[in-house]
Amino acid sequence: MTSTRRPRADARRNYERLLAEADAAFKERGVDSSLESIARRAGVAIGTLYGHFPSRRALVGALLRERNEALFELGDRLLTGSAPDDRPLARSAPGTPDDRAPAGSALAGWVRAATAHAATYSGLASLLTDGLDDEASELHDSCLRMAEIGERLVARARESGAVRPDATGADVTALTSAAAWLHEHVSPAAADRLITVTLDGLAARP
Amino acid sequence: MTSTRRPRADARRNYERLLAEADAAFKERGVDSSLESIARRAGVAIGTLYGHFPSRRALVGALLRERNEALFELGDRLLTGSAPDDRPLARSAPGTPDDRAPAGSALAGWVRAATAHAATYSGLASLLTDGLDDEASELHDSCLRMAEIGERLVARARESGAVRPDATGADVTALTSAAAWLHEHVSPAAADRLITVTLDGLAARP
Repeated sequence: MTSTRRPRADARRNYERLLAEADAAFKERGVDSSLESIARRAGVAIGTLYGHFPSRRALVGALLRERNEALFELGDRLLTGSAPDDRPLARSAPGTPDDRAPAGSALAGWVRAATAHAATYSGLASLLTDGLDDEASELHDSCLRMAEIGERLVARARESGAVRPDATGADVTALTSAAAWLHEHVSPAAADRLITVTLDGLAARP
Repeated sequence: MTSTRRPRADARRNYERLLAEADAAFKERGVDSSLESIARRAGVAIGTLYGHFPSRRALVGALLRERNEALFELGDRLLTGSAPDDRPLARSAPGTPDDRAPAGSALAGWVRAATAHAATYSGLASLLTDGLDDEASELHDSCLRMAEIGERLVARARESGAVRPDATGADVTALTSAAAWLHEHVSPAAADRLITVTLDGLAARP
């Protein structure tokens, strides 16, 4: 038994060590950190790293898996109106203040959460932006899902009159990426301020 | 004569060649392009490159010199109301529509020009953002001057009632950097849209 099970246990341990070292390196020096040095610190050969993660994006994708799930769950809650402090989106007649407020605040909640997610590691905003366009990217599916949630939330906000009629999902994705970049290169406060001002610009005029 | 003048002429030619190769490389692969390969393509040793440009930022600074001057001149014209299609900023009583419109459009003109400038090369937005905070950066003085022009234009727009009372120079700098990043990583159209929406958010409510 041991002779067949030991390699699997080793592989599992290597996988976990690689994830832990990659997370530490990406937090410290961004997603462009040397993979060689991550393998070295995990005590494995670079070939072992590539055996588990065929590319840098695959490694980033594995690290983001749990955070992605949490983010998508929040998106679903915001869409169904079951997120904390958010009332259902379509409880009253479209266009009434009662309806506008939750649709707008659900959108704002999403933009802030997606921005924090895209700012998990320095350089991640670029990787996610590229991942949305590149079907070959291991990050493509999750980027697409993020974009779809933004699209649906902005559609709700548009229908309820919370945002101007020309507001699009692309606006939400662009704001999220740009704010994540600011979060990383200027400050979290600068990112938050850009979100506030831009959402004000997207808001429907009274 | 030739024995004393030839080295200077050589140095001048090397300087010009290095600038031309660096411009081509930065346009193609961004400001993180290999300096070794720029020196090689200019036909000089890497030591010669460092003799002319002690750092990557010094090389970028030299390449931006003319563009900086053109940008600062535009800033001065926008501040004095002599830019094409811009009326003087303080020709009528503060807060009147006649006064608001030019102050707002001068600010918008500046944000668009500064964004285009910061998007000259891929990666330049990060370098300029860091240069604003780092006094040791060869880009510090020009970054500071850009920030000051933005600050003065937003102050005018605030005084004339074109933007909300809490709009700051930091908002302008953050928007410019974030839009330059979008220009580079998503598209010029996405950058332009963020600028439009964010300036709408900064505009004073009627």
